[in-house]
Amino acid sequence: MTIQYRVLSLLRDNGPLSRAQLADRLEVPRPRLLGELDRMVAAGRVREAGPAASRGGRRSTLVQLDPGVRFAAVDLGASSIDIEITDGALAPVAACSEPADIRSGPQVVLGRVSELLHALADQGHYTRLDAIGIGLPGPVSFREGVPVSPPIMVGWNRFPVRDTLARAHSCPVVVDNDVNVMSLGEQHSGVARTVDHLLFVKIGSGIGSGMHHHGRIYRGAEGCAGDIGHVQLEADGPLCSCGNTGCLEAYFGGVALSRDATEAAKSGRSPALAERLAERGVLTPVDVAECANGGDGTSVGLIRAGGHRVGQVLATLVSFMNPSMIVIGGGLAGLGYPLLAEIRSVVYKRSLPLATGNLPIVMSGLGPRAGVVGAALLASELAYGEASVTGDAEPPVR
Amino acid sequence: MTIQYRVLSLLRDNGPLSRAQLADRLEVPRPRLLGELDRMVAAGRVREAGPAASRGGRRSTLVQLDPGVRFAAVDLGASSIDIEITDGALAPVAACSEPADIRSGPQVVLGRVSELLHALADQGHYTRLDAIGIGLPGPVSFREGVPVSPPIMVGWNRFPVRDTLARAHSCPVVVDNDVNVMSLGEQHSGVARTVDHLLFVKIGSGIGSGMHHHGRIYRGAEGCAGDIGHVQLEADGPLCSCGNTGCLEAYFGGVALSRDATEAAKSGRSPALAERLAERGVLTPVDVAECANGGDGTSVGLIRAGGHRVGQVLATLVSFMNPSMIVIGGGLAGLGYPLLAEIRSVVYKRSLPLATGNLPIVMSGLGPRAGVVGAALLASELAYGEASVTGDAEPPVR
Repeated sequence: MTIQYRVLSLLRDNGPLSRAQLADRLEVPRPRLLGELDRMVAAGRVREAGPAASRGGRRSTLVQLDPGVRFAAVDLGASSIDIEITDGALAPVAACSEPADIRSGPQVVLGRVSELLHALADQGHYTRLDAIGIGLPGPVSFREGVPVSPPIMVGWNRFPVRDTLARAHSCPVVVDNDVNVMSLGEQHSGVARTVDHLLFVKIGSGIGSGMHHHGRIYRGAEGCAGDIGHVQLEADGPLCSCGNTGCLEAYFGGVALSRDATEAAKSGRSPALAERLAERGVLTPVDVAECANGGDGTSVGLIRAGGHRVGQVLATLVSFMNPSMIVIGGGLAGLGYPLLAEIRSVVYKRSLPLATGNLPIVMSGLGPRAGVVGAALLASELAYGEASVTGDAEPPVR
Repeated sequence: MTIQYRVLSLLRDNGPLSRAQLADRLEVPRPRLLGELDRMVAAGRVREAGPAASRGGRRSTLVQLDPGVRFAAVDLGASSIDIEITDGALAPVAACSEPADIRSGPQVVLGRVSELLHALADQGHYTRLDAIGIGLPGPVSFREGVPVSPPIMVGWNRFPVRDTLARAHSCPVVVDNDVNVMSLGEQHSGVARTVDHLLFVKIGSGIGSGMHHHGRIYRGAEGCAGDIGHVQLEADGPLCSCGNTGCLEAYFGGVALSRDATEAAKSGRSPALAERLAERGVLTPVDVAECANGGDGTSVGLIRAGGHRVGQVLATLVSFMNPSMIVIGGGLAGLGYPLLAEIRSVVYKRSLPLATGNLPIVMSGLGPRAGVVGAALLASELAYGEASVTGDAEPPVR
């Protein structure tokens, strides 16, 4: 890590610091740090912000990030675009969201992203962007900045997402999959801030996970680590969209839960769900959550059965990776306590006792914002020069 | 990593190098390196070994490890002690092995280890040890150098293994569990030498795993990562020694295989196994391997059924960690091709295609020596000053 990156990320995460505080925290020889700071001030990357509070002796000068820095954080879902513009410390200065069908293809969806970004510029939220971070709902070659065989992103395979946005907005761009982006957000600004071994689990339409070790995502040999949606639970289980049987996603996730709720409504097992289905023509996980809150036993049962399946997979992962915290995020985290209780019950019962003795299992602290927070963080890492984002420190993704 | 560690480990892994070669490989300013080398020569850690081959210009001097360096590598199994004495480059200079019952307790077993070490000294294989590395067949707090609630090591819980051996032999000692030690051996000198994301699986009496990321073991929050023997495969499966049902070890591993082979012999399903049982009174995995080689279908079936169960767990781990190689070691690796074929078949069928596209699944290259090779490596890392062995770089194990 360069001194420049370490200075910029400290200022991002801690606000303005005096030269003396920076020297203390960075453990770099003071003359070298001061020389670097002078160069960064001259280059406009940081600026001086008056004298710091006295610590006795000569007063040190406060240093802060250039207040004009702007990052764009883009979170693409299966059916939504969420954007935040942030300052250099990742505080949001503007945001916008709208529905969008990822299956419209990259030209349409990225075209709309660019229009929304230009509109935010026209509204005065930025004049130029320092970097863009974007999360996609599918596997991504992090090094190349392209989606790789993404199952639900029809027409996106190997589309040059990074280069397209970089050309349109004349700034560097970093692309990652949505689970990694959300887990980064949770690690940086959510419930997992001080956690060394984080297991983040996203339960949305599908199910994925991200493993962090001392604050860094573990990506694996081909960059596809964490893809647990197609772990087989029962050889003779239901058919999955991937062609195998009994996968985790064949049992749970937004798609499976909507299917099971519709079946429960039609079969007469749940009058509450049947009433909603009659009203709306279609059932979503939100309907199941609301019926469960309203006391519908069948809905509670569907949530618990799903939590049980997730818990089975997590029990194996806990024995294997021995995390220090599990965070559950994604749209279905909104199913709340019945889901969490069931996941906890299975993991605590089934994993190695030594691995669960001090293991909290909690809901995401950032909720639906996890994606944009993580995307803004990635953008800042890129702009501030962190090697792993520029691709130097990670193995090649073939 | 200190320059001293980097010099010593380069000489260990590459043999004598010239000062010029060391300067090239270490990318340290040349005057700083030469000063450090002078200090290391003066301290007797390395010595000069004549002029290097000319590269044009002034000849550089060859530097080599002190030939008097000695490490002791100790591999304790459930029923065996294996010891190697190595030089500074980990080449074995002497070895001894004998049966020993780990349940005799630490006083007896470590007492015998010390006797064997003293005998090797008396035979002239060393005058003093620079470090000892020891692997134990159970969970170990790496930082404290003690076993923690080891299931098969009766009487060993929190026994000060490190401090006992250090006092007896007046040298630093490093203690780790057997799976980590074997996987380190495989990573350093076996089939996994150039592998960045290694998943090592030991199938012995029980089953465990070790995950490596860029050459380092991933230990997890409490230091117990990799403990996959008690992953549940079927809720209504056979009772396991841990008290749960349907664990991987309830289906396979040396204990389960001996149980199933005995049952097959007694029930008349395998005349070949029945004959051996009558001869010897007890069946071991070696009997099953020999009967399978001799064409006994029931024995082949037992091996394949076990391989299938291991494959089920590995398929989940492959989707989760996306390794670049899987190495199968431990005593039951001797079951050979039927085991490997079944594991491959399940993993290649069930894991994410992107994760298995370039994934070799191979047998250990070091076989029964993996443990002592890894223990010698750990000893050298400790003696040469690698921070992660002295406990600085890893999170605390509570």
